[in-house]
Amino acid sequence: MDGVTADPGISLDELRLAARNHAMPLEALRWPITPVGLHYLLIHYDVPLVDPAAFQLEIGGAVGHPLALTLDDLRDRPAVEVAVTMECAGNGRALLDPRPVSQPWLTEAVGTARWRGVPLATLLEEASPATGAVEVVFSGLDRGVEGGVDQRYERSLPLGEALEAGCVLAYEMNGSPLPPQHGFPLRLVVPGWYGMTNVKWLASITLSEEPFTGYQVATGYRVRQTEDEDGRPVTRMRPRSLMVPPGIPDFLTRDRVVERTPVLLEGRAWSGRAPVVRVEVSQDGGETWADAELTRELHDRLAWVGWSFRWEPPAQGASILCCRATDETGETQPLEPEWNLGGYENNAVQRVPVVVR
Amino acid sequence: MDGVTADPGISLDELRLAARNHAMPLEALRWPITPVGLHYLLIHYDVPLVDPAAFQLEIGGAVGHPLALTLDDLRDRPAVEVAVTMECAGNGRALLDPRPVSQPWLTEAVGTARWRGVPLATLLEEASPATGAVEVVFSGLDRGVEGGVDQRYERSLPLGEALEAGCVLAYEMNGSPLPPQHGFPLRLVVPGWYGMTNVKWLASITLSEEPFTGYQVATGYRVRQTEDEDGRPVTRMRPRSLMVPPGIPDFLTRDRVVERTPVLLEGRAWSGRAPVVRVEVSQDGGETWADAELTRELHDRLAWVGWSFRWEPPAQGASILCCRATDETGETQPLEPEWNLGGYENNAVQRVPVVVR
Repeated sequence: MDGVTADPGISLDELRLAARNHAMPLEALRWPITPVGLHYLLIHYDVPLVDPAAFQLEIGGAVGHPLALTLDDLRDRPAVEVAVTMECAGNGRALLDPRPVSQPWLTEAVGTARWRGVPLATLLEEASPATGAVEVVFSGLDRGVEGGVDQRYERSLPLGEALEAGCVLAYEMNGSPLPPQHGFPLRLVVPGWYGMTNVKWLASITLSEEPFTGYQVATGYRVRQTEDEDGRPVTRMRPRSLMVPPGIPDFLTRDRVVERTPVLLEGRAWSGRAPVVRVEVSQDGGETWADAELTRELHDRLAWVGWSFRWEPPAQGASILCCRATDETGETQPLEPEWNLGGYENNAVQRVPVVVR
Repeated sequence: MDGVTADPGISLDELRLAARNHAMPLEALRWPITPVGLHYLLIHYDVPLVDPAAFQLEIGGAVGHPLALTLDDLRDRPAVEVAVTMECAGNGRALLDPRPVSQPWLTEAVGTARWRGVPLATLLEEASPATGAVEVVFSGLDRGVEGGVDQRYERSLPLGEALEAGCVLAYEMNGSPLPPQHGFPLRLVVPGWYGMTNVKWLASITLSEEPFTGYQVATGYRVRQTEDEDGRPVTRMRPRSLMVPPGIPDFLTRDRVVERTPVLLEGRAWSGRAPVVRVEVSQDGGETWADAELTRELHDRLAWVGWSFRWEPPAQGASILCCRATDETGETQPLEPEWNLGGYENNAVQRVPVVVR
């Protein structure tokens, strides 16, 4: 389905991760808002069991007015709802060669949900950040060991980004309370950023006058070629498009068979940096391209757009279908992935082999 | 987490299946009713997109009164709700050696949901089965190729089982309309049987005077040692128990670290043949066993029971925790799996290595 034929020899460690975490079956691209349970999911440690009655969100550190808020306090404030496309930073990792050993995503670690909650900016302003505050640290209730380090899951954002990126502290997903696996009772949602930023089971927000040096920022989620290199942090999603594979699948191989009649190819495309302005389709593995038609069903600036393309299958036999998105900054998807040690940000074009019969 | 240390070299075909289908993270055993999205999921082909307004269930074949029912027709009839524990017949497949190549489940392909809908028996009686009718064939809307055969997903039940097993044609799961991936708008639910029986996207029911010879009954889901052997069909779930792994996990290996203080081990146990009457726990990899305490939170006869056991970790170092269920028929879980060609019904005891620190 992704044009790779060699068997990668996935390890038991990787299989255990793949059994817990799951991608979005690509036929779910048909829905602008991904149904719960089809949205991709990555959980670093375990899903914690949280008592909502005892839950408090604490906002502290370099602030003038520390806050401690119950769920009712949060629900009593003015709410916003945003449709956010979220993709795992490691999406496409298992297609890299050599393959970085971690959650072995192929192409489908993505989803779009409607998140409802309190704007982060209003709470930060209420807490009154100190003049010297530069960074905001978000801590979840999930605990584990990673790279030999005992930790809660924690990520940070520069204060400016925390105030201006349209961040939401969400207590609802698609109109219902957050499911446990998506962060019940509260999570951070940062439109446009890769998934690791959207801290689940969010319990504290700490403003800091120093850059945060926790594991998930200083060690994990950095683009680099070697362990010695400091590299750069993973931040916003690069442009990407995916298609609903046409025809019917083989159970075991997921290879597709298509009848020789015109078929409407469809899919979605997104970028965390700027709106997608173009999607192209190729039927020859990326040699030649033609423009698809775009449909904006969601009005949030960085939510994915729909695309469609009427394809007339050529003669019987094998074709490799591809799609490629370009965003308003002019950035487009590469044909081949750019390798890095952690296997992040692989936005190479999707390749869908089909057999026309 | 399952006591296997050798790397199995999972193929790309298996990884593609593992990325789509997903198990239930074991910490979700804490909930008697599995939250949607944490329930295991196996989809042979693609999730079909079904228009509920145009949907009709047809009941025909060897019947006196064929029926065609809309969703409203079904919702207008008296409804029942059952809590059903459902496990994939291939659960545990990836722990077999040699490993049958298919969906590479480890131990967690299970879940329990509340299914609401119409009793199958009342509809079958209304359709008035012919005297010679012996089998009932259930056909889904999902299509694909399997073992070289183009097919809709279809399974059958003996007529007696279809009338007496408490089967439900479900249109709700956990109080909401079925999610697309669990069979929207209608699925068959057969308490006690392995998951493959619970046909999703159910569109027709056909009574037959001959045994059904479709792929998923005659070729798939049979317990046999060689391709030449006819074998026996997979039917009801064998007894099994699972535990919530204690302590905290390592992200990559999922290995567990536990503090040296008493810990309440907990989990659930089920059998599709008879209620579970005993769960035992071992801290030494199955050498010695002690009884756990059982809790029946769900009142449906074959739904899983909760169990708990107060464990005092011994000296620092490695332990292998196990649990073992026995049902009312006296059947218990084996320490080692019984191999078969398709990798079905592996109910060997779970092994959870932990390090006490």
